[in-house]
Amino acid sequence: MAKSAYPPALNRLIGTLARLPGIGPKTAARLSLFLLLSQRSLAGELARALDGAAREVRLCPACFNLTDQEPCPICADPDRDAGLICVVEGPAEVTAVERTESFRGRYHVLGGLLSPLDKIGPAELRIDQLVERVKAGSIREVVLATSPTSQGQTTAAYLADRLRETGVKVSRIAFGLPLGSDLEYADPMSLKASLEGRREA
Amino acid sequence: MAKSAYPPALNRLIGTLARLPGIGPKTAARLSLFLLLSQRSLAGELARALDGAAREVRLCPACFNLTDQEPCPICADPDRDAGLICVVEGPAEVTAVERTESFRGRYHVLGGLLSPLDKIGPAELRIDQLVERVKAGSIREVVLATSPTSQGQTTAAYLADRLRETGVKVSRIAFGLPLGSDLEYADPMSLKASLEGRREA
Repeated sequence: MAKSAYPPALNRLIGTLARLPGIGPKTAARLSLFLLLSQRSLAGELARALDGAAREVRLCPACFNLTDQEPCPICADPDRDAGLICVVEGPAEVTAVERTESFRGRYHVLGGLLSPLDKIGPAELRIDQLVERVKAGSIREVVLATSPTSQGQTTAAYLADRLRETGVKVSRIAFGLPLGSDLEYADPMSLKASLEGRREA
Repeated sequence: MAKSAYPPALNRLIGTLARLPGIGPKTAARLSLFLLLSQRSLAGELARALDGAAREVRLCPACFNLTDQEPCPICADPDRDAGLICVVEGPAEVTAVERTESFRGRYHVLGGLLSPLDKIGPAELRIDQLVERVKAGSIREVVLATSPTSQGQTTAAYLADRLRETGVKVSRIAFGLPLGSDLEYADPMSLKASLEGRREA
């Protein structure tokens, strides 16, 4: 008998958890046994949290960030600068920028980065929607805040190109040495970016 | 504004996932965004799998393995030897032994291992229940199949001691070189166990 010693409902839970990214069958089994043996109430709480999030959370029709309101609180906030748009890869990057407490404009969430190998072209991202937002007027500046990775750089270059026709000001976030880092140990690429991006003191 | 840019229902999902062992806040956020952005149907499936497992899966009143039937299919199987009991730490170890397809007895699931530092003493494990099962008669041999770790060895020694009064035959699984391994690279502890456990060829 090579069959599993677990009941079918447990195998189903393990199999479903294993479909999450970064969770292999062994981790899925460990998590499932934890839920059923150590913290049974957490299983119900997690089920309700999943249902609640799936029911309440959707995309903002203006900026495509995750939200439970339409438009999202950032787009609806009259104190934020509607003329300044920060373009980011996804909702996690919105949160990262918000944590700086230094950006008072709005966002445009692309839903990914250009990646020909993964068959993600401009049509798979919300690029047309960005161009339309800009064309609709009232936008003064678009800050391209994709990561300084090859995909992020490619995406930023493509966006700068696409936005040129609109005549809007397009800027790119700065790259260089991270604050608190030691120049002696800086990676050459960041130090190169730091030198190239030097500004008058 | 240091507040999160995520809607409350999403933060709730992240916070609940982060209560799972080995899942930190960053992994919890990554999984939550995956569920809401990439694979929304999986959120509902996972919620149902959690509810189903919590509803259907309980402990076998005889062997304390996870089951959806009482007694569990192994305890209920008339073809399995009711006189032979394999004592293991948890349900994952039952599955490991079952995978060998070489054990035809029944199990006793301790629910952990003795660990004074974690305040897990005999009362926290199903040791009294094991002694009672043995005292109830009809059991011929108890195989102690806890891991060859210090907690597993301590637990096995304690169980052997507790079971002595019952007069039942108590055995310990064998330790030594794993099959397919190279003696040249064997760790000294396993090789020592292998020498001490030598049997007539």
